[in-house]
Amino acid sequence: MMNNDLQVIRHSASHVMAQAVKRLYPNSKLAIGPAIADGFYYDIDSDITFGTEQLEAIYDEMKKIIKENLKIERFELPRAEALELMKDEPYKQELINDLPEDAVISFYKQGEFTDLCAGPHVSHTGRLKANAVKLMNATGAYWRGDSNRKMLQRIYGLAFNNKEELEEHLNFLEESKKRDHNKLGRELEYFTTSELIGQGLPILMPNGAKVIQILQRFVEDEEERRGYLITKTPYFAKRELYKVSGHWQHYREGMFIMGEGDLEDERNEVFALRPMTCPFQFQVYLAKPRSYRDLPLRYSETSTLFRNEASGEMHGLIRVRQFTISEGHLAVRADQLEDEFKGCLELAIFMLKTLGLYEDVSYRFSKWDENDSSKYIGGKEQWESVQNTMRGILDNIGVDYYEADGEAAFYGPKLDIQIRNVHGKEDTLITIQIDFQLAEQFGMVYTEANGEKVNPYVIHRTSVGCYERTLALLIEKYAGALPLWLSPLQVSVLPITDRAGDYANKLVTELRMAGLRASADLRNEKIGFKIREAQLQKIPNMLVVGDK
Amino acid sequence: MMNNDLQVIRHSASHVMAQAVKRLYPNSKLAIGPAIADGFYYDIDSDITFGTEQLEAIYDEMKKIIKENLKIERFELPRAEALELMKDEPYKQELINDLPEDAVISFYKQGEFTDLCAGPHVSHTGRLKANAVKLMNATGAYWRGDSNRKMLQRIYGLAFNNKEELEEHLNFLEESKKRDHNKLGRELEYFTTSELIGQGLPILMPNGAKVIQILQRFVEDEEERRGYLITKTPYFAKRELYKVSGHWQHYREGMFIMGEGDLEDERNEVFALRPMTCPFQFQVYLAKPRSYRDLPLRYSETSTLFRNEASGEMHGLIRVRQFTISEGHLAVRADQLEDEFKGCLELAIFMLKTLGLYEDVSYRFSKWDENDSSKYIGGKEQWESVQNTMRGILDNIGVDYYEADGEAAFYGPKLDIQIRNVHGKEDTLITIQIDFQLAEQFGMVYTEANGEKVNPYVIHRTSVGCYERTLALLIEKYAGALPLWLSPLQVSVLPITDRAGDYANKLVTELRMAGLRASADLRNEKIGFKIREAQLQKIPNMLVVGDK
Repeated sequence: MMNNDLQVIRHSASHVMAQAVKRLYPNSKLAIGPAIADGFYYDIDSDITFGTEQLEAIYDEMKKIIKENLKIERFELPRAEALELMKDEPYKQELINDLPEDAVISFYKQGEFTDLCAGPHVSHTGRLKANAVKLMNATGAYWRGDSNRKMLQRIYGLAFNNKEELEEHLNFLEESKKRDHNKLGRELEYFTTSELIGQGLPILMPNGAKVIQILQRFVEDEEERRGYLITKTPYFAKRELYKVSGHWQHYREGMFIMGEGDLEDERNEVFALRPMTCPFQFQVYLAKPRSYRDLPLRYSETSTLFRNEASGEMHGLIRVRQFTISEGHLAVRADQLEDEFKGCLELAIFMLKTLGLYEDVSYRFSKWDENDSSKYIGGKEQWESVQNTMRGILDNIGVDYYEADGEAAFYGPKLDIQIRNVHGKEDTLITIQIDFQLAEQFGMVYTEANGEKVNPYVIHRTSVGCYERTLALLIEKYAGALPLWLSPLQVSVLPITDRAGDYANKLVTELRMAGLRASADLRNEKIGFKIREAQLQKIPNMLVVGDK
Repeated sequence: MMNNDLQVIRHSASHVMAQAVKRLYPNSKLAIGPAIADGFYYDIDSDITFGTEQLEAIYDEMKKIIKENLKIERFELPRAEALELMKDEPYKQELINDLPEDAVISFYKQGEFTDLCAGPHVSHTGRLKANAVKLMNATGAYWRGDSNRKMLQRIYGLAFNNKEELEEHLNFLEESKKRDHNKLGRELEYFTTSELIGQGLPILMPNGAKVIQILQRFVEDEEERRGYLITKTPYFAKRELYKVSGHWQHYREGMFIMGEGDLEDERNEVFALRPMTCPFQFQVYLAKPRSYRDLPLRYSETSTLFRNEASGEMHGLIRVRQFTISEGHLAVRADQLEDEFKGCLELAIFMLKTLGLYEDVSYRFSKWDENDSSKYIGGKEQWESVQNTMRGILDNIGVDYYEADGEAAFYGPKLDIQIRNVHGKEDTLITIQIDFQLAEQFGMVYTEANGEKVNPYVIHRTSVGCYERTLALLIEKYAGALPLWLSPLQVSVLPITDRAGDYANKLVTELRMAGLRASADLRNEKIGFKIREAQLQKIPNMLVVGDK
């Protein structure tokens, strides 16, 4: 939640910045300038490129405006006069034209500067503290986020109550930058990328691959203990499968397609890489008849998925085009739904606690968007009924969740376990969903005691987030020094001299036989250098061995 | 190797069958009719469809021809007269026309029947034993194997020295049919397939997925013990990667391509699913500078590969479009090549012995085809030099291999470990290759002690065949009763009555805590039924528990 006073300060800082820009570069046209978490931005159309030099000049001008202590005043205008006032600001005109007919059109004025704005603002520019405001950088941003429209420049700034709060935040940023997995993860040789392979396709180096192997085995074994059966299903399928599941109709832009997607011709075999495991794992259920006594059936798979993310959206190990995840599907009877849902949640919490990530999560109950029902399969009655069932289960379990409209999957509502990373950004790590649609689409049934054929409920779930993202979170959380059980190298043996080399090797053999991941640093380097390097590599244990 | 006398008998049986066909269906045109392993076939162009009824009639006619004891005589003709003699046989005419100018054109005649043939044959049709010959079936076959030419009917037959040998072979066929993984593997719920997903994309059911999980972990752990570093690299990459590796030029029809392969336009991102791991794992090597002291580097990955097999070629778990394999690449110095190659071979032999498959393998030294050098990268001198090196290594190790021209990869010669399955069919299970090309293509170097940058040799290797194929071989080898350590379910606890159910559950818990895979059969069925089912499912241990 954003602090309300701070939000006003940040919004006013945005106006002061816009005023400074107009004073220095009067031909600039203003678009929008909201308060955001930690600060503000303003999107500006200008023939000047806002580099370091320009940002410094703008900041100096902002200091002057703050010192001038201009009174900030609100006024309203009818539409025609509002358009006349903004006649040199085409973006503002477009915004005014898009307002509903009966909207109140308000402006805020400070000195010679007036901006279309709903407010509120501080009373005078002098209420801002120049040493609590900092301009950060400028990036490109499409007008209204539409890549078909003009690319503007977005200047970002920070704004706080006072100098101390700003400095604290700058320290936090400095610290999170050091922990950034996209930097640290490369330095510690967890992963790399290659221009030849492509964006969003990280290459796990031996350190990263080892951590993920340990995690995968841990998850698979824990799931087996909890009664899951493992499957191994293909990574792609014919278009026809996705037509049944609805992915072809509802998720096609997100998939990698092989063949001509639109051509219906039996000689044209069209395949798509899977974005989800569900329709594949359902084939396991469908391979033989099922009875009410066989349920619940819990399937899980260490599954690789593929999503065609747009170029600009990819980032390190977090936003990728291929990832691996323990995806599972439970086929359950109505009377088993609550217990099984609870079991899924308990497993997820067990995993989060084991990894030390539990304190960073919150729960989001993601529902459909009634006003955009074409994005979903199934009708209003079904959705409301299953959402009510799910709310009941969540309340019974006693989870402290918040509700979010329009965040459901196209086939059912879900519980998202949201995680806040070291940069303060929230992302979905784990989802557990109730699906009342796909069993019917795929003809999955079981035979009741009375001989009736019934569709099971399906629970879609992960027990831990996708492994690549989890690795990124762990690197950032632990600043690279992973817990011992996950550390790719647990002990480094450092001989002081060449003479101790044989003993070091013997020690490594013994440590390995004891089940530890150990290696010796036999390089012809000084011991101080070896120790420094082992520290930089965040190796949890060092054994220095010498003549004595 | 085929028995020489048997080959003559089989070839003569083919003629006798062709004679019978011409007697019964005189309008049929004959194509070719060779001896093959276990028997013979003849390709025939006929307006009759050869079904069971026709095959019986043909066999009856063959018995008559054998009884007639016709003398089989050879004669030669000049080309013009040969063509005249075969004027009603268009396929024979085409064969004659394709013979070199100075070829001897010979025929074999028995009674009213004459065939273009190089021989040799038995002296009289009566030398064949009717009860040692059996017609099996008829399938389609393109004339000269060319799918643009006419589809003929190929009638298959078996022929042996005597009735006993034929019966022994029929028993063998019956037995291998029972062991056929494509039948038994489905019955035992190792895998299934789905029309919606597509051909060549088997779905591993919990039993199959469990065996492969056990195998994978066993292989990964053994490799780690032998100094391998694991990697995890993306399953697809941009076209550009394959242009460097040569796959785009030499292997494109074998790959699944996303995007318009031929369109060079920066907005057209073209990707391909990987058919091999090499260019991906090379990026791990390339991620940092390497010195002579770092070598040998042994990388390995539980890697999924994708090959666009033609529709007709796919079969069960053996010939598939997606498979998983431990693929590894070693970067080695010239002075390490022999030892490292030997290490790869020893690991492969260890795996084969552990799985009980070692007695079924032979070694093939696969070389390039000098007469078709456009299929390969690199020149004659390089190929001969590295093939000589490799032959030297094989001779030093003392492997008993045979040589095969034209079976090399496009980037280097290889040692193929060939396996003969229960049907007697030979297939490649494991390959170890020496590559002297790709390190250069990808700019992989290491720094020598003197500062010089040198390309390492690369050894491409698997330690056990692809997991799907290995599972198929194991199912067939062990007729479904896998060795205990691989058995998906090791102990089935069978309570005699409902009253023993609780005790059965307690036993299962204890067995699981002891590390065994156990479950209880709690169905309300008679104990005899439960035992029979557990036997059919090839469960290695049954614990029957009752009141006492």
